[in-house]
Amino acid sequence: MTWRATVLTLFPDMFPGPLGISLAGKALAARLWALDIRDIRNSATDRHRSVDDTPAGGGPGMVLRADVLARAIDATETPPGTPHLLMSPRGRPLTQSRVAELAAGPGPLIVCGRFEGVDQRIIDARGLEEISIGDYVLSGGEIAAIALIDACVRLLPGVMGKAESGEDESFSHGLLEYPQYTRPQEFEGRVIPDILLSGDHAKVAGWRRAEAEALTQARRPDLWAARAIQNPPERKTNG
Amino acid sequence: MTWRATVLTLFPDMFPGPLGISLAGKALAARLWALDIRDIRNSATDRHRSVDDTPAGGGPGMVLRADVLARAIDATETPPGTPHLLMSPRGRPLTQSRVAELAAGPGPLIVCGRFEGVDQRIIDARGLEEISIGDYVLSGGEIAAIALIDACVRLLPGVMGKAESGEDESFSHGLLEYPQYTRPQEFEGRVIPDILLSGDHAKVAGWRRAEAEALTQARRPDLWAARAIQNPPERKTNG
Repeated sequence: MTWRATVLTLFPDMFPGPLGISLAGKALAARLWALDIRDIRNSATDRHRSVDDTPAGGGPGMVLRADVLARAIDATETPPGTPHLLMSPRGRPLTQSRVAELAAGPGPLIVCGRFEGVDQRIIDARGLEEISIGDYVLSGGEIAAIALIDACVRLLPGVMGKAESGEDESFSHGLLEYPQYTRPQEFEGRVIPDILLSGDHAKVAGWRRAEAEALTQARRPDLWAARAIQNPPERKTNG
Repeated sequence: MTWRATVLTLFPDMFPGPLGISLAGKALAARLWALDIRDIRNSATDRHRSVDDTPAGGGPGMVLRADVLARAIDATETPPGTPHLLMSPRGRPLTQSRVAELAAGPGPLIVCGRFEGVDQRIIDARGLEEISIGDYVLSGGEIAAIALIDACVRLLPGVMGKAESGEDESFSHGLLEYPQYTRPQEFEGRVIPDILLSGDHAKVAGWRRAEAEALTQARRPDLWAARAIQNPPERKTNG
């Protein structure tokens, strides 16, 4: 079955957007994945087609209504086991391992939040998993959904060529990626490190590993610490 | 002077994309900000218009060339003090406070990486600040640039109405946002918490604060710990 992202949004025109171009776009045209965009406003029931209301208890902005979102979610047809996500800065931070899990499944249903947020009761009643793409605030969940879908799609079978394989990329071994160089050999007086031109594969691999470790320690002590816990240096595998 | 984002990309058709719609799109049409998209390929010099080459030392994928990127960057006209950013999973994680700084400035120049990465020498030679929007890998820097620009634009003067003010949103006090509720008062047997309907503003504020703190502690112990360091509970302000 084709991996499918089902997106509930108030701005259907934002899709496919960047997902219709380049790697994800070619894969979409080749039917390696599918995108089902639903306008939340179609689930409104009053003659003003209202989808939001003022926050209970006061405060700025508008809150997406639980009843409208429930109708929108319940009208979708998704296979059993479909993760139901809500893009929100309150959510758990998205990681590459969660991306890999989502890419391995049937594809998520994604609710895009807007305004001040969504009524908490729809999160509770439909068990929405709140996911954040980072510690900043966007104007809505649409761009976050696009980022999440792009990250998943590139991992789907057949989407990346062998030449683009993600084996050595950032986060693949809990490390940031080593520095890259290419021709020309000299650029503004700066040269490619000799070792990369040595033809000694073991030395190149060792240098890249050391660079990746040094960069991760310097720039992301949090990733470095998490990695040390997962891969204690003295641990022997018995299995 | 109008806040301007200058974007260097191999996929200019990805822009404005979602930035042309809704909050950012209306502000763009109203000239509250400007978007300058430059095709990196226009800075290629050979007849194949090549922009990338194989990684020195071997490995999968292709690396964006330093000389081509240098020409593309140097051809832009940006005011003094313009931050030069490179969207990359190797970068420092984007935060709401960095977003606020970028929104307060003239607007960034943003290089969108592609393939396995960009030649390290252009990062060093032009002092590019590597920024990551999160711990996952995208097919390129374009969607990351769109997220960063959207986060900045909503903070520009005149873009958000008073009703949308970001005062109480996630990260504004180092906390995730409290739960929101709106009409209807009952949804599938779930009711709005009584306190939000009490009309007692002090009690509502206290409840929201407690909910925001509890959520942050449970879901983001890292944010909670950072907040405790920044706001030690016993500290008195003398200034």
